[in-house]
Amino acid sequence: MATIERPVHELAGLRPHDLRGAIRAGQWRRPTAGLAPGFTQANLAIVPRELAYDFLLFCQRNPKPCPLLEVFDAGDPESREFAPGADIRTDVPRYRVYRYGILTDEVDDITAYWRDDLVSFLLGCSFTFEHPLMDAGIRMRHIDLDVNVPMFTTNRTCKPAGVFHGPMVVSMRPIPQDQVVRAVQITSRFPAVHGAPVHVGDPLVLGIAAIEQPNFGDAVPVKPGEVPVFWACGVTPQAVMMQAKPELAITHAPGYMFLTDRRESELAVL
Amino acid sequence: MATIERPVHELAGLRPHDLRGAIRAGQWRRPTAGLAPGFTQANLAIVPRELAYDFLLFCQRNPKPCPLLEVFDAGDPESREFAPGADIRTDVPRYRVYRYGILTDEVDDITAYWRDDLVSFLLGCSFTFEHPLMDAGIRMRHIDLDVNVPMFTTNRTCKPAGVFHGPMVVSMRPIPQDQVVRAVQITSRFPAVHGAPVHVGDPLVLGIAAIEQPNFGDAVPVKPGEVPVFWACGVTPQAVMMQAKPELAITHAPGYMFLTDRRESELAVL
Repeated sequence: MATIERPVHELAGLRPHDLRGAIRAGQWRRPTAGLAPGFTQANLAIVPRELAYDFLLFCQRNPKPCPLLEVFDAGDPESREFAPGADIRTDVPRYRVYRYGILTDEVDDITAYWRDDLVSFLLGCSFTFEHPLMDAGIRMRHIDLDVNVPMFTTNRTCKPAGVFHGPMVVSMRPIPQDQVVRAVQITSRFPAVHGAPVHVGDPLVLGIAAIEQPNFGDAVPVKPGEVPVFWACGVTPQAVMMQAKPELAITHAPGYMFLTDRRESELAVL
Repeated sequence: MATIERPVHELAGLRPHDLRGAIRAGQWRRPTAGLAPGFTQANLAIVPRELAYDFLLFCQRNPKPCPLLEVFDAGDPESREFAPGADIRTDVPRYRVYRYGILTDEVDDITAYWRDDLVSFLLGCSFTFEHPLMDAGIRMRHIDLDVNVPMFTTNRTCKPAGVFHGPMVVSMRPIPQDQVVRAVQITSRFPAVHGAPVHVGDPLVLGIAAIEQPNFGDAVPVKPGEVPVFWACGVTPQAVMMQAKPELAITHAPGYMFLTDRRESELAVL
């Protein structure tokens, strides 16, 4: 699209509805971190109806890495629950298209790929609980360093469902020892965006031999007096999906999330 | 089955695993309330694979009335998550068999009905959160009166999914005014068994004109100084399923639940 992108400061104050409009108009083709603070950002996964039952079952059986926010009707491109009026084919700033598990295209509009049998899944993203953590004075090392959060493939196996199976992927955040309990409490309130940590402390328990060599994202240092804390990660369903090599699968590009109208506080269980 | 039933006092102290053995052996053909305190009891719904996607989607879209605990693989009769080793065809004390939405049989063994395409769903039961409520000194009127909890069809519509649609059914418990906040807090910890109330106070808000005339279960009095508190109810998925008139559906008989090995405390989110 030949539209001129708008600068950050023009979009910073916009609500999700208007941000999606700007994205649709080609005025924003960058990662969405920091946009629409307080609102839920979602992972996107689209598969043919033929695979949708297995994928839905996989998410039901693995709610920590795959917390479902919304499942669209087959062929329906509108997010009726989390962003009424939004068109999932145009309202994400960057998509990835996979054929038989191979990345074949990275595009900013998937209208040309759309079919009546495609089912869209929105899954919770841990960007959502980073806000409440920072509000509580718990700093996010990867944000301070302006890098991506480090992610690791673990020795924990997801519960399989039909064609989908694979290991759980986790994200890691170093937390000062005296803030670990608070971090557990705060994220426990948000099961819809991965919830409480899956592990606190020794990376070897998860089969992670080198904390300085993440499988995805960027390395961040764990300083003396800090504890590595691990949360189930939304990369899990993407990795599992690619391993199943579906004839067609479409996802958002990492960091280029779908912006919903749902406030993160609405997702809190308590 | 011609086996002699065992008296209550013999079973009262048994763990779920042994209780299921007694049920399988025909030694218990009564409701399960009061058995295996501290362990999760589950609603059961079984449908052909052809309908399983729509039903799974319906549960995903309506987690308050339809909190999924476990979905079995098609044709698999074993509860691999909540009660490893249990056979769902023999381990429930009474089943109901429906053909095209009509109750055709009430049996204590569904082996003869079993097919390779049947998918079993376990759903949370509010029996589970009544224990923590009573532990906090909040009395359950229907238990004090030894009657079934009163249930009402409401004016709230569930989100439809495929062939499944219908109103939300709620259960009602009268709570003294000074215990309402605590009741909300306690049940909020258990989203897997219906979670927080859907409404506190005036029944008319839910379209309930006569609190003394429940649609299911038994009437209980709401005394001066008490507030009627309403929770989403597991009768919802059964009512919705019957309305869709599937060629075959099997459920537990009301009150005759599936006893799982999972402690209720394991289901608490915080």
